[in-house]
Amino acid sequence: MKTAKSDIVIIGAGPTGLFAVFEAGLLKMHCHLIDYLGVPGGQLSEIYPNKPIYDIPGYPVILAKDLVNNLLKQIEPFHPEFTLGDRVEEITQQSNGQFQVKTRRGLLIECAVIIIAGGLGCFEPRKPELEELHKYEDSGVDYIIRDPEKYRNQNVVIAGGGDSALDWALYLADLCKSLTLIHRRTEFRGAPESVSKLEAYRNSGKINVLLNSEVSKLIGDDKLELVEVTSDQGKHQFEVDYFIPLFGLSPKLGPIANWGLQITKNAIDVNPLDYSTNIPGIFAIGDINNYPGKLKLILCGFHEATLVMQSAYKIIHHGKKPSFKYTTVTGISELP
Amino acid sequence: MKTAKSDIVIIGAGPTGLFAVFEAGLLKMHCHLIDYLGVPGGQLSEIYPNKPIYDIPGYPVILAKDLVNNLLKQIEPFHPEFTLGDRVEEITQQSNGQFQVKTRRGLLIECAVIIIAGGLGCFEPRKPELEELHKYEDSGVDYIIRDPEKYRNQNVVIAGGGDSALDWALYLADLCKSLTLIHRRTEFRGAPESVSKLEAYRNSGKINVLLNSEVSKLIGDDKLELVEVTSDQGKHQFEVDYFIPLFGLSPKLGPIANWGLQITKNAIDVNPLDYSTNIPGIFAIGDINNYPGKLKLILCGFHEATLVMQSAYKIIHHGKKPSFKYTTVTGISELP
Repeated sequence: MKTAKSDIVIIGAGPTGLFAVFEAGLLKMHCHLIDYLGVPGGQLSEIYPNKPIYDIPGYPVILAKDLVNNLLKQIEPFHPEFTLGDRVEEITQQSNGQFQVKTRRGLLIECAVIIIAGGLGCFEPRKPELEELHKYEDSGVDYIIRDPEKYRNQNVVIAGGGDSALDWALYLADLCKSLTLIHRRTEFRGAPESVSKLEAYRNSGKINVLLNSEVSKLIGDDKLELVEVTSDQGKHQFEVDYFIPLFGLSPKLGPIANWGLQITKNAIDVNPLDYSTNIPGIFAIGDINNYPGKLKLILCGFHEATLVMQSAYKIIHHGKKPSFKYTTVTGISELP
Repeated sequence: MKTAKSDIVIIGAGPTGLFAVFEAGLLKMHCHLIDYLGVPGGQLSEIYPNKPIYDIPGYPVILAKDLVNNLLKQIEPFHPEFTLGDRVEEITQQSNGQFQVKTRRGLLIECAVIIIAGGLGCFEPRKPELEELHKYEDSGVDYIIRDPEKYRNQNVVIAGGGDSALDWALYLADLCKSLTLIHRRTEFRGAPESVSKLEAYRNSGKINVLLNSEVSKLIGDDKLELVEVTSDQGKHQFEVDYFIPLFGLSPKLGPIANWGLQITKNAIDVNPLDYSTNIPGIFAIGDINNYPGKLKLILCGFHEATLVMQSAYKIIHHGKKPSFKYTTVTGISELP
C-alpha cells in the first residue's frame, strides 16, 4: 500500500477545493487533494468547461475552464499533491486525533484535518440493471470513454438515446470494427443534427441501430464476449468486445455517506461560522455543505475555504490562532 | 433639496459595495451608492491603487486599481447611481418602513433597504488642535490636496513631517508664490530621498522650513489671512493664503456611530447568517461589520454582499424569496 502525509486532505478538486489550497498555503499548511475525476476543476472541467460565468467578483465574464486554470496557477506556489481518478473510501481517526484516509486504489494518507469540498458528490454514471454488470467492469464494460483509441478495430455496443450516446456512436463508428447502437425507444433525445447524421450512418451500414431494444444479458468467461439483446421480436445474441452504456451522469455522495457525518438532503450539515461537521477535525465547504441561508455559488465556496483554514490551523497548531496578514503587505511565499 | 429613489442605498463604494450592486442587479434590485471619497474603490483607490493583491480567487495577482475597474465593468449592466464626495449624515425610517437617507450636501434618497459597506469608515484627515480651524475650512484651510493648480502663485503653509507633507511641499514649491513647511520636531519621518531633496530646496530658498515650530493661531476676517507660529524663539505671524495641515488620514466611523446601531470596537455587530444589524432593514457588510470569526478580507466582503441580497430581496418583495438561478444558465440581463 502506497502511503503519504499532509497537513490537510481535501476531498474534491473543484474550484472550492483548489482555492482552499491557497488559503491553507498562506498559513503554511500543505494540502493533498483527491478527486474522482481525472482532471482538476470538478463540474467546471467535466460539465461546462466552455460556459461563461458572470458572478465571479472582478471578472465581468470568465469561461469555466479559464477560472480553473487561473486557480491552478494561483496555488502553484504551495505545491499541492494531487491524486486524481481515485476516491476516498474510508476514513479512520487514531487515538492521537490524526486521520488515516484510504482510497479505492490503495493509497493511505495520514493527515490532521480533512476538508470535504466534494461539490454535489461524485458524478457517477447511471448504470443499466444487469446482474452480471459488476463482473465485466474493467473487462468489457465501460461507462466513460477516456481514450477512444482503446476501441479501434473492436466490436462495440453503445446503449442510450441522448447526446452522449449519439455523439460517441458517430465518433467511434469510424474507428471500430463494428458499432451497434441500442436504444429502448424509437425516438432519440439528442440534437436533431446528430439524429440526421445517425440516420445517414445507419443507411450506409456504418452503424447498426437497434430500436425498442435493451441489452438483457452479458456473457463471457474472463471477459465480455457476447451480449443478449431483447426486443419485441424476441432475444438474440451477438459477439462484442465492449459494451458502453451511456445513460448520463448522476451526482452521488458515494462513500461520504458512510463516515458518520450528519447529512440532510445529500448535503453535510455544518456550523455556519467555521464549516465544521459533527466530527471534530472534519470540515465541509462548497456545494456539499448545508447551513441556514446557504447558497450553492462558487464565490461562497471561496469564502468558506478562507474561514475554514482558521479552524484547521488551530487544530494543526494545538489551539494557536493564526496571525492575520494581508497579501498586499506580505506577498506570497512558497511552501517547500 | 435634491431627491432620489432607489431600492437599496449602499453606503460605501469600495470593492464590497461595488460587488453588492452586482448581486442586487441579478435579483433586479437597483442601487444608489454614496461615498465620502471622490472616486469609487475605497481604500483600493485612495490608499494602495498600485499595490498587488494576491488573494482574490482566480487572480494569481491583480493591482488594486485593476480590481476596481473590473468591478465597475461588472456592475455596468445594472446602472447604479453614484453620489461621490458626499456623506450620509442622517437616516430616518418612516412608518411604512421606508428609509430617508440625507447627505451632507443636501441629497435626500428614499429606499427600502440600507446596506452599510463603509470599510474602516471615512478616512478623515487628522486635524491640528486649533480653535479657529473650523471657521476657515473652505476659506483657506485644506486637509486634502485635490487640485494643485489652486495654489499657483499663492502663499502656502504646509504643516507635517511625514511623506505626504514632504512630497506635497516639494511638488507645490514650484507652483506657489511662497511655500513654508512647518514641523514640530527637527527630524522628518519621510523617505530619505525626499529629506535630501528638501534640504536642497531649503538651501536654494525655494522652501522656507521652520523646525521645532507649530501653527498656534489662524487669523483673518472672511478668509484666512495670517498664521501665528510658535517656536522656542517665541511667536511670530506672517501672511498666508492657504494653510494645509498634512498629519495623515485616520479611519473614523463618522455619523454612522449616531444611528442607533450596535457597535463594538468601531465595527457594526451583525447576524452572521445575513449580516442584518439590530435595526431591521439596515445591513452591514465588508470590513465594517463584526461577527464571530470575521476576517477583514475583500473576498469575505464579496460573499457577504451575495448573501445579504437574499434578505434585502425579501424586504423589498414583502417576504417573497428570490428564485435561485446560475449566471452560466441565465446570463446577465440589464436593469433599466
